[in-house]
Amino acid sequence: MAAKKPTIRDVARRVGVHPSTVSRVLNPETRSMVSEFVATKVERAAERMGYTRSPMAAGLRTGRSHTIGVVIPDLTNPVFPPIVRAIEKVMTEAGYIALLADSANRTANEMAIFEKMKARRVDGLILATARRRDAVVDACEQDGLPVVLVNRTVDRHTVPEVVTDDALGIELAVRHLVELGHKRIAFVGGPQNTSTGRDRYRAFCALHKAGMFLSGKGLIANTRAFTEQQGKLGLLTIMKSRRKFTAVVAANDLLALGCYDALAERGMRCPEDVSVTGFNDTPFMDRMNPGLTTVRIPLAEMGEHAANLLLAVMRDPVVAAQSRSLRMEPKLVIRSSTEPRN
Amino acid sequence: MAAKKPTIRDVARRVGVHPSTVSRVLNPETRSMVSEFVATKVERAAERMGYTRSPMAAGLRTGRSHTIGVVIPDLTNPVFPPIVRAIEKVMTEAGYIALLADSANRTANEMAIFEKMKARRVDGLILATARRRDAVVDACEQDGLPVVLVNRTVDRHTVPEVVTDDALGIELAVRHLVELGHKRIAFVGGPQNTSTGRDRYRAFCALHKAGMFLSGKGLIANTRAFTEQQGKLGLLTIMKSRRKFTAVVAANDLLALGCYDALAERGMRCPEDVSVTGFNDTPFMDRMNPGLTTVRIPLAEMGEHAANLLLAVMRDPVVAAQSRSLRMEPKLVIRSSTEPRN
Repeated sequence: MAAKKPTIRDVARRVGVHPSTVSRVLNPETRSMVSEFVATKVERAAERMGYTRSPMAAGLRTGRSHTIGVVIPDLTNPVFPPIVRAIEKVMTEAGYIALLADSANRTANEMAIFEKMKARRVDGLILATARRRDAVVDACEQDGLPVVLVNRTVDRHTVPEVVTDDALGIELAVRHLVELGHKRIAFVGGPQNTSTGRDRYRAFCALHKAGMFLSGKGLIANTRAFTEQQGKLGLLTIMKSRRKFTAVVAANDLLALGCYDALAERGMRCPEDVSVTGFNDTPFMDRMNPGLTTVRIPLAEMGEHAANLLLAVMRDPVVAAQSRSLRMEPKLVIRSSTEPRN
Repeated sequence: MAAKKPTIRDVARRVGVHPSTVSRVLNPETRSMVSEFVATKVERAAERMGYTRSPMAAGLRTGRSHTIGVVIPDLTNPVFPPIVRAIEKVMTEAGYIALLADSANRTANEMAIFEKMKARRVDGLILATARRRDAVVDACEQDGLPVVLVNRTVDRHTVPEVVTDDALGIELAVRHLVELGHKRIAFVGGPQNTSTGRDRYRAFCALHKAGMFLSGKGLIANTRAFTEQQGKLGLLTIMKSRRKFTAVVAANDLLALGCYDALAERGMRCPEDVSVTGFNDTPFMDRMNPGLTTVRIPLAEMGEHAANLLLAVMRDPVVAAQSRSLRMEPKLVIRSSTEPRN
């Protein structure tokens, strides 16, 4: 408190280099531009003198804040923590800090968060919130702000994305049920304004049309959100149609848990009366009652790829123009919520 | 892109007020200092002209960034998302943005996060990471940085905190087991360098000393982290002592899930052979197999209180000196993991 804070000039004078050299060394992105010998000397002097770089002031000078934003639609959905944790890890190692925000699934919040993050000069964004037509993604493109989409994507596929092969995932779940002898299969889908909601629904319809099983009107319900409440409502709607089914494919794990609730409310047992499958293999799904058969997607790996992709785009914006897309392969995990049809 | 960005001076000229009036209106914290009539005129003009305040530049001028930091020890522990979501909600409404970071339970990370957040001029911090002696808390006090602790606290109790009555929580769990006829009760505790780990352990020992049940050496294992893995290890260690027990009190829900795993590995059933209780009532615990009997703490409410407390401290640092403490009351939630002793 008492002593005057050392400046970048003080450090430079002590080491006998130009202040811009000190600046380069202390910026993780430019450190490699300085020889290891000088860099070490500068770092030691800065530490001894108690000099810390102000990224905020540096940001105003260089236009870089070394801050990235991560926006997720629902922090309480356990699919996101493993993705976010992987993003944080990669970003921290690269000298960035990740500013995480939760939009609570509201478009208005997403735009407000974007405006605030932009005003705080984030260097880039990772969005897990994309809708098929997304105003925030459009705004990033207009402003030239580096952006990477994770899990969900937009119809135009104009920005880099790390997504799952949703069609393959649904096919794995359906084939498993068909092999168990299920002939009448219901589907509880997600919101159709998201790529995951739409692609999983389309995949189910395509397999139905191919004649693999009986389904169709009355046995399909697309819901308004990927939540337990909506999953329960979805299956209750299907049950009102009085069409018979012995299995349900849910478009994500929370919807599947909602299906458990709907079955319990109608006095039906899972898997004895109805088999249920989920999607994502979020944490704890192995511990559910019954353990959920689901489609596993590599959550941590997706976060890692998204972070590395954003780092690449921030380094070289031309990469963004090439719009790189990574599509992860899903796997089926069989547990106790599915069994052979009686 | 083409047009020059409007400045605060442009907005002031358009409305016919001083630039400092525009600044006051556009800062959520000072808006009330300006008459509603003028404030509305300024906001409309700013919106029409496309002027957005730069909180970063404003931060350098006013010393305020309208950013707060939230540090949690483990984003994948479902106890934290409801707390964080409540903090974000209160902070967003107050015109702040919450910068969330996950320390992955490492002291070194916590200090690095603190340094980065300080360098980015956060106005205050909410820490869910406190250890009983905590270098980050000390550093906040030294720097005069407003800080509020949530869930865990420090031994010195010198900073505002929102915690649970841990002793009462353990008493509720123990009394429930004793009423079910359990006489030999084991305890799987958390790290003793955290207030929650230490206070829950002490509460269990006090009840044991009071003669409510049999326990003690061989039946108590304090672990190194509040995780499923550590819970499993803890109960396996207890089982090696070959002392008999018919119930286990775990110091949090993840430790309790680890106890499920240890019992399963030894071919024992919960609750038929051993009853298990948890602590926190984190999301999904009602869906476990078996549903976990646990001590519920009001997670969202704790986040709300922590956020409001930080806002109060940032407004008036004297509040911090008074070191306000909020202690939330826990409740027992009885599910299927506990049953009368045979």
